[in-house]
Amino acid sequence: MREQIFPTVIQQLCEQFAKLPGVGRKSAQRMAFAVLNSPEGDAEEFAQTILEARSTVKCCALCQNMTDDELCPLCKDTRRDTAIICVVAEARDVAAIERTREYQGLYHVLHGVISPLNHVGPDDLTVKQLLQRVNEHNVSEVIMATNPDTEGEATALYLAKLLLPFGVKLTRLAYGIPMGSHLEFTDEITLSRALHGRTNMG
Amino acid sequence: MREQIFPTVIQQLCEQFAKLPGVGRKSAQRMAFAVLNSPEGDAEEFAQTILEARSTVKCCALCQNMTDDELCPLCKDTRRDTAIICVVAEARDVAAIERTREYQGLYHVLHGVISPLNHVGPDDLTVKQLLQRVNEHNVSEVIMATNPDTEGEATALYLAKLLLPFGVKLTRLAYGIPMGSHLEFTDEITLSRALHGRTNMG
Repeated sequence: MREQIFPTVIQQLCEQFAKLPGVGRKSAQRMAFAVLNSPEGDAEEFAQTILEARSTVKCCALCQNMTDDELCPLCKDTRRDTAIICVVAEARDVAAIERTREYQGLYHVLHGVISPLNHVGPDDLTVKQLLQRVNEHNVSEVIMATNPDTEGEATALYLAKLLLPFGVKLTRLAYGIPMGSHLEFTDEITLSRALHGRTNMG
Repeated sequence: MREQIFPTVIQQLCEQFAKLPGVGRKSAQRMAFAVLNSPEGDAEEFAQTILEARSTVKCCALCQNMTDDELCPLCKDTRRDTAIICVVAEARDVAAIERTREYQGLYHVLHGVISPLNHVGPDDLTVKQLLQRVNEHNVSEVIMATNPDTEGEATALYLAKLLLPFGVKLTRLAYGIPMGSHLEFTDEITLSRALHGRTNMG
């Protein structure tokens, strides 16, 4: 979009949308025009929601998940098992695991993974808070649930090394072939992990 | 995302993003978390840009394109040929045609196409303004440049019928095989249009 066709503020709006993850130049332009074509009240509500969300949402004092209170609803829930901590990279991973309705323990949100290429070190994550939790609370198990990619793996290994002295049980989500997939389309690393992690059939 | 995991305001922010074109539930959640994880100043700037764009951007009094002034830069440009009007559905189509650097006439932005299924009739578009322009100004040609789909076609035919009494030349963008494509992958309707519209080789 050339500046002479549209006013600069449209250009600026496009740039704001283009900053969002997974949004390219063309999608950003489409979104900007959608906002401009929406009723004025809708655009105001959108802006207001951004401001309100950004100002009220903070990190849970315990698990660092996003919340608008001192503690998040999961940490406040007395029915949860406080002795198990599931370590995830992002808040959305909490939502993913909660959807299974299988897990009853608590979480710890790192807000990223260690990534030297992106200049993200342990101090940029909530590693200190995790160590403090394991040290101060009665924790029996820490489940590493970072993504099964290079950075997620490295972060899990790094944390495991730090947590070893605390004498807690350290576990990792199982690797294997995803449900509903086909062996022939499964990559060899996943298949090799699935072989190594094979379980008895009862 | 269940409400008990995240505060309602995050849910609301997700819903705002999900309203944008081409944004699904998962992308909306990703965008919402990106905003929440961004520095507070960035989120404020984002909200501010939405408000500013929505309040300053209006329709050009002549061509109905988006502008922050009475007339858009193209209508103000005295070098453009005011006798030719290119009718497009959306403001982004103006940007697409301008990128060719071929067209020297003016535009008319309909802000949509006639679509009975979506309850969009001629009165919801800038049809009246187009007729007024053709009536009051010295217009020699109107180029229909709506999209080559059912609704774009129907809108072009409808407008052509309305414009016929004014005695202006009515044209339509050429249909044909797109540059760089292969005949074998071109659908039969496009190919049949390309045959019908074949041109002399000089």
